This record gives sequence, structure tokens and C-alpha cells, in this order.
Amino acid sequence: MDHSAKLLLNLFLIYGAAKLLAEIFERLRQPAVVGEILAGTLLGPSLLGWVQPGDMLAGLAEIGVIFLLFTVGLETRSGDLLDVGRTAVPVGTVGVLVPFVLGFFYMEALGHPQAESVFLAAAMVATSVGITARVLKDANVLFTRAARVILGAAVLDDILGMIVLAVVTSLPAGGIKYMQLAIVAAEAISFTLLILLFGPRIVRRLEPAVPGLKSSNPAFVLSILLCLGLSLASVYIGMAAIIGAFLAGLALADHSAKWRLHDKVQPVYEFLAPFFFVYLGTQVNVRTLAQRDLLEMVGVVCLLAIASKLIGCGLASLSMGWKDALRVGVGMVPRGEVGLIVAAVGLSLHTISDRIYTVVLLMSMITTLVAPPLLRLLFPAGTAPVEMAANE
Amino acid sequence: MDHSAKLLLNLFLIYGAAKLLAEIFERLRQPAVVGEILAGTLLGPSLLGWVQPGDMLAGLAEIGVIFLLFTVGLETRSGDLLDVGRTAVPVGTVGVLVPFVLGFFYMEALGHPQAESVFLAAAMVATSVGITARVLKDANVLFTRAARVILGAAVLDDILGMIVLAVVTSLPAGGIKYMQLAIVAAEAISFTLLILLFGPRIVRRLEPAVPGLKSSNPAFVLSILLCLGLSLASVYIGMAAIIGAFLAGLALADHSAKWRLHDKVQPVYEFLAPFFFVYLGTQVNVRTLAQRDLLEMVGVVCLLAIASKLIGCGLASLSMGWKDALRVGVGMVPRGEVGLIVAAVGLSLHTISDRIYTVVLLMSMITTLVAPPLLRLLFPAGTAPVEMAANE
Repeated sequence: MDHSAKLLLNLFLIYGAAKLLAEIFERLRQPAVVGEILAGTLLGPSLLGWVQPGDMLAGLAEIGVIFLLFTVGLETRSGDLLDVGRTAVPVGTVGVLVPFVLGFFYMEALGHPQAESVFLAAAMVATSVGITARVLKDANVLFTRAARVILGAAVLDDILGMIVLAVVTSLPAGGIKYMQLAIVAAEAISFTLLILLFGPRIVRRLEPAVPGLKSSNPAFVLSILLCLGLSLASVYIGMAAIIGAFLAGLALADHSAKWRLHDKVQPVYEFLAPFFFVYLGTQVNVRTLAQRDLLEMVGVVCLLAIASKLIGCGLASLSMGWKDALRVGVGMVPRGEVGLIVAAVGLSLHTISDRIYTVVLLMSMITTLVAPPLLRLLFPAGTAPVEMAANE
Repeated sequence: MDHSAKLLLNLFLIYGAAKLLAEIFERLRQPAVVGEILAGTLLGPSLLGWVQPGDMLAGLAEIGVIFLLFTVGLETRSGDLLDVGRTAVPVGTVGVLVPFVLGFFYMEALGHPQAESVFLAAAMVATSVGITARVLKDANVLFTRAARVILGAAVLDDILGMIVLAVVTSLPAGGIKYMQLAIVAAEAISFTLLILLFGPRIVRRLEPAVPGLKSSNPAFVLSILLCLGLSLASVYIGMAAIIGAFLAGLALADHSAKWRLHDKVQPVYEFLAPFFFVYLGTQVNVRTLAQRDLLEMVGVVCLLAIASKLIGCGLASLSMGWKDALRVGVGMVPRGEVGLIVAAVGLSLHTISDRIYTVVLLMSMITTLVAPPLLRLLFPAGTAPVEMAANE
């Protein structure tokens, strides 16, 4: 009973604080997601200490972000994503190369050990699909060309980021294993392409069997299983679970209206997603902000992190016109959870110091907090035929 | 990453197995919920051992059963529940007294210590609202008079069961504290009555403020907060969280159609509830079934548990005609999670032996597995105007 009371108190506090700050931020014309993240910082161990980021919150956060990307996938057609491939592939590639190079040489210039420089550079690579997707979704602009380029590039980005992580992780243990690396990369790319190309067709083939099932809501049940199954497969291949969830959504997007999938998945996402954003917020330790010399380094790393994506991805998408290029550049800025994973791996391998870990943490958080208000300015709600996009 | 893979594997296995066995049971014309519980037993530590009932599963199970009762509450109007009060109050009261007396004297006759007898008797008292609600919901008969009597009596039953638990828990620690007990009972009863009577009115008063909120889906967000808040309040008062969730649903029932609450809460319940039923299933240790002398005792206790509710509650509701009386009697049979809580408390206080704990566990599970098929026979799907009841 005690355990139950603690769980319920946490759920109530987290959900309540997230939604209260989201409401306040909406009234200040700021993105709700920033309010939810700050609710986590406020409740977390470094300020009020009312919520500890334990296994239960981490678990709910993971399920929450999976349902976020699943919902975003349901609102995106794989054909649309393949259409923007010619732009998204260079955007994703440049968006990995430029931050890595800038980060590496900055650390080298400061005289840090090479392995540590490589880790910081790797942590600057991958865009957080979760944050950007949430902001684009809240603004009802997922159907725009710029949003599709951002999503496509962010998925590619995550695959490349995974390869970079595999490389840097193998560095301390005696050099890169090229063969193993090639296998990992081939698996990730072929898995993604296979589902992108054949997922919708396979779902169409399976469709006639669905009404024969006796369970209630068979289409919803099968969709959840596909989402969990592909998320699991992604993790086994070495990618983030959210890529699998996004691909599952894509595969089902053509049937979303017919099976009323979006209407059913959206509430699950709405209930669970705040736990993900609050969890991100609990990871911020505001006390480190008091160290002035650390702050200088954080400032430089943040500037490099923002400039590299903004300029790199912006230039790579300039063919869309400068306005869309600016949107794409800003959309690729937030690092969120992916940078945190890289930093945590580096810390566990004793490759990076506590100081550099804190720098990565703050860089992830600051890029995450800076991008949403800018995106909101660049994607005015007026650009969207809201009714259609909301799919309700 | 490893943690994430383990979580996803568990989610996929649990949800997949639950829905597979649910489908098989539906085809055998048996209740889906029995299939989901047996999926848990199959995956659990005593058979395949693929799923361990840890904190994460227990947490998801708790959230799942809260959403189950919240959904059931949304489909019930508090006025309807108060209307059946004249029948539900005697049914609930008799349904607590008869099993307690029968259980106590059976244990005394076998020569067990008095404290142990009291605990076994207390574990036989409370009906599992969760199981019965699920079966009634699956059959689309929640709107029938018999279903409303069962729900009303089961809620009362839970309150009385909580008082009995408070009494038996205080026994080993030097006798009953009457004053404290009276306070606990008064709190529980007045909390329930207050929300039953004033909940819908308060929601009606708050209604004009909802469209003024800037957040997306404000009605859904406020409903979730009410559900979590009242669940938490229930636990603080000493009742099960699900009573609070049910009362929150009742308070919002009048606005369910207008705010499309049912359509939004139902998918969250559909995703999370299988984790509750699988969790129940993982608690069963099939190896204990090999002990023949234990099985005899289990048989007698089960017979007493079934007969006491069937005859006691049946007689108390005979004014509704023998058919509805039979439905009510069977509806009150499953003990499920409440009996398990009492047994766990008894074990932790060293008041009951491992053997008696196993007896209670098996009694809970057998009454839970026996009632759904009978209920399904007694509430043929044909009795219901399905379209209306499903509220879709």
C-alpha cells in the first residue's frame, strides 16, 4: 500500500506540474514542451527534490517517447518522407559531420586527451527527434515540406549518430573494428529502408485478416504490437527504440484514418509523454550553473552546437529557399536524450571527466530549450490548415 | 540501452501474450480476461520465467487498473448508483459478513491460532471490483440494474473490507483501537458519499472555465488529474486507489459525451489494463498445486468463498428476481487483488504461515477464474443494446 501511495503521488505531482507549467508557457506564448521540461527540473533532485528520476519514471518516460514518435509516424506517409530524401540525406549527413569536426577541434585546442575530445564531439552529433517532433506536432505543421525534411534528416542523423557512438566506444578498447562497424551500419540502414519501402504494403496485405479477429479493437491491438515489436527490433540492431516506433507509425499511416488509429494512439501519448519531458528535466543539475569557468566552456560548446547545425543543415537545404532552410537548421538544433546517452556511456567508460559530462548535459538541455521558441516563431500556427493536420 | 531493451522486451512479451490468449479464449467463447491472467501465469516465474513481477510491472499494473475503474466510472452515472443503493447496501454488507464468519469458523475448527483464522477470514471478504467490472464491460452490460448493484455493492464491500483489514492488522499489536478505527471508517464513508453526491455538481460548476485554458485538450488533462488526485486521496484515507479512480469517473460521467472523455480514456485503459491482468497471473505459483493436502484445504476455502458470496449476496438481492439475484451473487465472487493484499499484510506481520498464504493466493485466483465464464453465461451479449452501451 505504501508503494502504491508513493507511485500515485509521483504520477500526480509529475503530471500536474507538467501541465501547470505547460499552461503557463502557452499563456506566455512559449512552447508547452519547455514548460514540461522545466517542471521536471523544478521537481527534480537539484531543486525541490520531490521527484527522483528512478526506474519507474525512466520506464514511463521511455514508453511516453515511443508513443510520441509512433503518433508522429502515424501522421507522416512514408512516400512523403521518401520524396524529401534528396534533401534530407545531405541535411542529415552534414548535420553529423560539422558538429563532430567543430567539437573535436575545440577540445583539441583546449588540450584535452584525444579520446575525451572524440566523445564530446560524438555527443554533439545526434538531433533529438522527440523534442522537434513534439514542437512541430503542437504547431500542427507536420505535413509541411520543411517538417518532413527535418524528420527524415533526424532519423538518418540518429542512424549516423549510432554509428559514431559505436566507433567512439570501440576506441578505448584498442581501435576501431571496421568489420563489426560495417555490419551494424548495414543492419540499421537496411532495416530502416525495408520498413520505409515495404511496411505500408505488408500492412495492406494483412488488412483483410483483421476483421476476422474476435478480440475487441483488433486493429489497435495489432498496431501497439507492431509499435512495441519494431521498437524492440531497433534496440537489438543498436538504434534508439524511438526510430522503430516512428517506422511502425509510418507503416500504419495509410490505415490510420480507416482504423481510427490516430484517435486512439493520441490519448495514450497525451497521458504518457509528459513523463518523458519531465524525466529530461530532472536530469538537469542547476547547481553546476554556479561554477563560472565551467559556464564559459558550456557557452562555447553550445554556440558550436547551435551554429554547426544551423549553418550546416541550413546550407544543405538551401535549395528549398532560405526560409525553409532556416526552419530545417533550427529544427535540427536540439540534442536532448541522444547527447545524454553518449555522455553517460563516456562517463561509464571513464573516458570523459565529470566536468565534461556536465558540459554535455548542459549543452543537451540548452539546445533543447533554445530551439522550441525559435521553431514556434518560424512555423507560425497560421501556416497550417489545422483541421486537416490534426486528423480529427 | 540494456535497460531499455529489457523494458521493451517485457512490454512486448506481456502485451503480446495477453492479447494472443485473449483471442484464443474469445474463440473458445470464454472471457478474454481469463486468457490475459493465464498469460501472466504462463510467462511468470513458476512456469516459463520470462517475466518477473518487479516494480515496473507492478507500477504499470496499478496504473492499468486505475484506468479500468476510471473508464467504468465514466460509463456509470452516480444517480443510477444511488438509485440502487437500497439493494446494494445490504448486498455489500451481507457479502462481507457471511464469508468472514464462514472462513473464521472453518479455520477455528481446524485448530489454527485465532489471529491466523481472523486473517484468512479477512482475506475472503472483499470482492475484486476490477475483474467483475472488466467482464461486465466486455459484455457491454454496465448499464443493467444487476451490474449497477454489483458495482455499488463492490465499492461498499471494499470500504468494509478496508475496515476489516484495519481491525485485523491492529489485533497482533495489542487489540483493536476503536477510536482510530471509527475515524478511518468515517473518513472512508464520508469521502465516498461526498464525491458521489457533490462530484458531478462540482464538475458542472468548473465546466465554464475549461474552454479558457490554452493547453491542448484541457478537459482530458483535468480529468486525468482528477482521476490521479482522487486515487491518491483514497490511498491516504486507507482505501484502495481504484475506489478513487471509480469515483472520479462517476463525477465526470455526465460530461463524458460532451468532452469525448470516454473515447480518450478507453485507449489508455486498453493499452495499460493487460499489464494488470498479466501481473495478477504472475502471482500464481503452479508448483504449489502438487501438494495434495494443501489442495484439499484450498478446495474447501474456495467452496466457502464462492458459496458465501453466491448465497449471501444472492439472498440480499432476491427482491430483484432470482435471475438478477443470481447475477449479483456470481458478480461478487471474484476476490482478485484485494485478497492478495490482505494475505501479503498477514505474511509480513508473521500472523499467517506460508501455507495459509498460498491457500489465500489460490482462493483469490480460483474465484477470479471461475466467475467470468459464469457471468458471461448469465449476461448474454444479447441483453444489451451494444451500440449505446459502448458509447461510441
